[in-house]
Amino acid sequence: MPPDNTVFIGKKPTMNYVLAVVTQFNNGNQRVNVKARGRAISRAVDVALIAQRRFLPQVEIEDIRLMTEEVSVSDDERTNVSSIEIVLFGPEPEA
Amino acid sequence: MPPDNTVFIGKKPTMNYVLAVVTQFNNGNQRVNVKARGRAISRAVDVALIAQRRFLPQVEIEDIRLMTEEVSVSDDERTNVSSIEIVLFGPEPEA
Repeated sequence: MPPDNTVFIGKKPTMNYVLAVVTQFNNGNQRVNVKARGRAISRAVDVALIAQRRFLPQVEIEDIRLMTEEVSVSDDERTNVSSIEIVLFGPEPEA
Repeated sequence: MPPDNTVFIGKKPTMNYVLAVVTQFNNGNQRVNVKARGRAISRAVDVALIAQRRFLPQVEIEDIRLMTEEVSVSDDERTNVSSIEIVLFGPEPEA
């Protein structure tokens, strides 16, 4: 399996990330992780649901994990940020 | 069980909703649903994780559901919006 099966969600338009997810499946991945932090979490949910509904009807949401991560905001200041990981799982690609 | 066990996340400060979740558990609920749509989804994740980490260490995330809802934006226009439902589940309250 190709190792590059994670799509990190940032500030680009939602459809850019949807395309990235669809491409990962088309490249033979059976499992794609959609990850985001902070305010990008809402967009990650959009990406997973749009990819599934519009382009990958055979793909399922296998797992959703919520985590709290500690990030540095300056040299001696740290803060907590929420993150999400949505695991999409599809059937074995045809040979 | 009291029926009012859902906390809808809007635009108020995160801690308002955290307090609402903690209050639901203190009122004897064993299960509290945190629901949000669109951009409030990120805040819902914050609310669930902060409530759990800081105030309710015995409470677990029982389920996370992602949905697409259709909403009216005007009389004859409808659009899709993502939504999340985070189900928090705690041990039976002491008598």
